[in-house]
Amino acid sequence: MSKFWSKIVHELTPYTPGEQPKLNNLIKLNTNENPYGPSPKVIEALQAEAADSLRLYPDPNSDRLKEAVANFYGIKPTQVFAGNGSDEILAHVFQALLKHDQPLLFPDISYSFYPVYCGLYQIQYKTVALTDTFEIDVNDYMQPNGGIIFPNPNAPTGRLLSLQEIERLLIANKESVVVIDEAYVDFGGQSAIGLMDRYPQLLVTQTLSKARSLAGLRAGFAVGHPDLIDALHRIKDSFNSYPLDRFAIAGAVAAMNDREYFEMTRQKVIASRERLVEKLNALDFEVLPSGANFIFAKHATHDGAELTAKLRERSIIVRHFKNPARISPFLRITIGTDQECELLVSALIEILKA
Amino acid sequence: MSKFWSKIVHELTPYTPGEQPKLNNLIKLNTNENPYGPSPKVIEALQAEAADSLRLYPDPNSDRLKEAVANFYGIKPTQVFAGNGSDEILAHVFQALLKHDQPLLFPDISYSFYPVYCGLYQIQYKTVALTDTFEIDVNDYMQPNGGIIFPNPNAPTGRLLSLQEIERLLIANKESVVVIDEAYVDFGGQSAIGLMDRYPQLLVTQTLSKARSLAGLRAGFAVGHPDLIDALHRIKDSFNSYPLDRFAIAGAVAAMNDREYFEMTRQKVIASRERLVEKLNALDFEVLPSGANFIFAKHATHDGAELTAKLRERSIIVRHFKNPARISPFLRITIGTDQECELLVSALIEILKA
Repeated sequence: MSKFWSKIVHELTPYTPGEQPKLNNLIKLNTNENPYGPSPKVIEALQAEAADSLRLYPDPNSDRLKEAVANFYGIKPTQVFAGNGSDEILAHVFQALLKHDQPLLFPDISYSFYPVYCGLYQIQYKTVALTDTFEIDVNDYMQPNGGIIFPNPNAPTGRLLSLQEIERLLIANKESVVVIDEAYVDFGGQSAIGLMDRYPQLLVTQTLSKARSLAGLRAGFAVGHPDLIDALHRIKDSFNSYPLDRFAIAGAVAAMNDREYFEMTRQKVIASRERLVEKLNALDFEVLPSGANFIFAKHATHDGAELTAKLRERSIIVRHFKNPARISPFLRITIGTDQECELLVSALIEILKA
Repeated sequence: MSKFWSKIVHELTPYTPGEQPKLNNLIKLNTNENPYGPSPKVIEALQAEAADSLRLYPDPNSDRLKEAVANFYGIKPTQVFAGNGSDEILAHVFQALLKHDQPLLFPDISYSFYPVYCGLYQIQYKTVALTDTFEIDVNDYMQPNGGIIFPNPNAPTGRLLSLQEIERLLIANKESVVVIDEAYVDFGGQSAIGLMDRYPQLLVTQTLSKARSLAGLRAGFAVGHPDLIDALHRIKDSFNSYPLDRFAIAGAVAAMNDREYFEMTRQKVIASRERLVEKLNALDFEVLPSGANFIFAKHATHDGAELTAKLRERSIIVRHFKNPARISPFLRITIGTDQECELLVSALIEILKA
C-alpha cells in the first residue's frame, strides 16, 4: 500500500499463475504444457532470428502471423488479431468488447483470470453455475448481458460444449459479443471459427502455448469479424505497439504452417489421455470427460489437497483449486508423456495403498 | 465503429509507431534503432533458447533479468520491474501510478504515446510548454499535479536535463510520482537511478531497444522504490502473467551482462552523432544539442516535410512531425553507421542544391 498507487491498484486481486518451479527433476503436470517440444521447423525458424536484425523493431502488426492463421483456417487476415499469448489478447478483449452496462456472464467454475480482468477494467460480471455434471448449459446464458465468455473445452473441468450448442447460443444472443476461449480446443474439440462468417458477434481466441508447444514463446490470436478485430487493434495500439518480438512472430508462423507435426503431437496427447483415464478409473478416480490436454479427476475417498501434497513429496506437481468447494476434491492433471503418466499412476498406487 | 465496442474504444486515438518498411534497400533513420546489431554473447544466448524447453512457460517474473539489471546498477532486484519493452511498462505505470485526482504533467513536445495512455486509462493531463530553446524547465512543473513524466533526454528534441535539475524537482515534488523515461539516456545522459534511494517517488524506465540493440526482442525495465515496483506487479499480474518470452529474458540478461560491447557501441554512436552534427551545421542546419541516438535538426530555408519527402525519394527515411507547428520545420534523424550518415549528407547536399 502506498499513497502513490492509483485507486485501481488497491482494489486488484491479481491472478496467480501455476507454479513454474526452478528445479529440473520434477514431473511437471500443473500448467497444461505440451509434453513434446515444438516442431523442428519451428526450431529452425527461431535459430534464423538470432541475428543482427534484432536491432530493428518487429512488424507491429505481425502480418506474417495473421496470414499464417488465415491460411490455416481458410479465412482472411483482416479477421485475425495477434497478441502476446492469449492472456494478453483476453485482457484487450475484456477492455475493448466486454465492458458494457449489463454484466458480463461467465461460468462459476472457469478460467480464474476472468474475474481478475473484470477487476482491472472495472467490468461488472455475473457468474453462471455449471450444471451438476460440470457442464455449461447455454440456456442459462439467455438473459440480459453485456457479453459472454467461456473456454471450450472449459478449464479446469476439461468438458467440451458442442458447436451445435454454441450456435444455439449465438442465435439467441445477437446484441453482445460471445467470446469462445479455445486454448485447449485442439485436443478434442472443434473450433467455432467455422461459425464466424454467420455471427458478427462471435470472437474466438486461441493460443500457441498448448497444442503447438510454444508456451515459452508467447503468441496467441483472436479471430472474428473485422469490426471486432479493429477494436482490439485500437486498444493494442494505445498500449504497446510491438507485443510480439521477432522470435514470437517467426516461431508462431512456422508452427501454424507445420500441420503434420501439429497433428502428430496432438494425437499423441489425446491417446495418452485416454490411456491415463482408463488407469485412473481402475484406481477409483472419477474423471470428467475431457477434450483438453488435462483431466479433472476426483478420488472416491481421498481428498484433492491431500493427494496433491503427497504427489509433490514424490516430485510430481499437479494443480489443485481450493475454491469453489465443489471442485476442491479434484486434481487437475496435465497429460504428460506416457512415461510421465506411468510414473504418476505408480505414485498414486503407492499413495492410495499407504 | 460497432455496437459491440466498449465505450473506451470509441474514444481512443491510438499511437502511430514509426514506419517499419518491409523493403530491405532503405536507409532507415526513422525509429531510433541502433545501427549495430546486439552483442555476440546475446546471439549465443538466444541460440541456446531455440530448444524443446519452449514448450514450457517462461519465468513469469523474469527474475534473472531483474538480477542482471540490479547487478548493472548496484541495486536490489526488488527495486526492478521487467516488461515487454518500455512501452508496455509505461502503460502499466500510467495505470498503476499516474491516475489521480490532479492532472498528470508532461511536456507539450514529448513522446507522443503519453496522451494516448491517458486516453486509454482516462487520466486527466496538462501539458507544460518547453522553453523557447526546447528545454524542460523544472520550475514549470512545480504546481499541483497527480504525477509528472518526461523522457530524459526528451524525444523528439534529444535535449538533456541535468541530474541536478531532476533532483531539484524531486525535492519540490514529494507527493506524486515522478517518472523519468530514460529510453535514450545511454547516449549522453546520466541515469537518475542513482537518486532512487533518496526519493521514494522516483521511478525510472529504460529499454533494451536502443543502446542494447534489441528493439526486435521487446524487453525493458523500471527501477524504483519496492512500493512502486509492487504496484506494477499487481497490474501486470492482472493483465498477462508472462509478458517476456524465453528469448527476451535470455537475450536481455546477456545484454545487461556484456558491459564491454555496450560501451563500445554507444561510444561509436555518440562519435557518429558528433560528426553528423558538424556536417549538418555546415549545410545550414540548426541542430538541437542531443544526448540521444538521434538529432532534431531544422534547415535555415527548407521545410521539414519537404526534406523528408525528398529524402524518401532517395530511399532514406527520417521522421517528421506535423504537430505541434513549432516542430514541423524539424527532421528527427536517427544516428546510423558513419556510412549511412555520409549517404544522408550526400543526399541532403543534392536536395539543397536542386
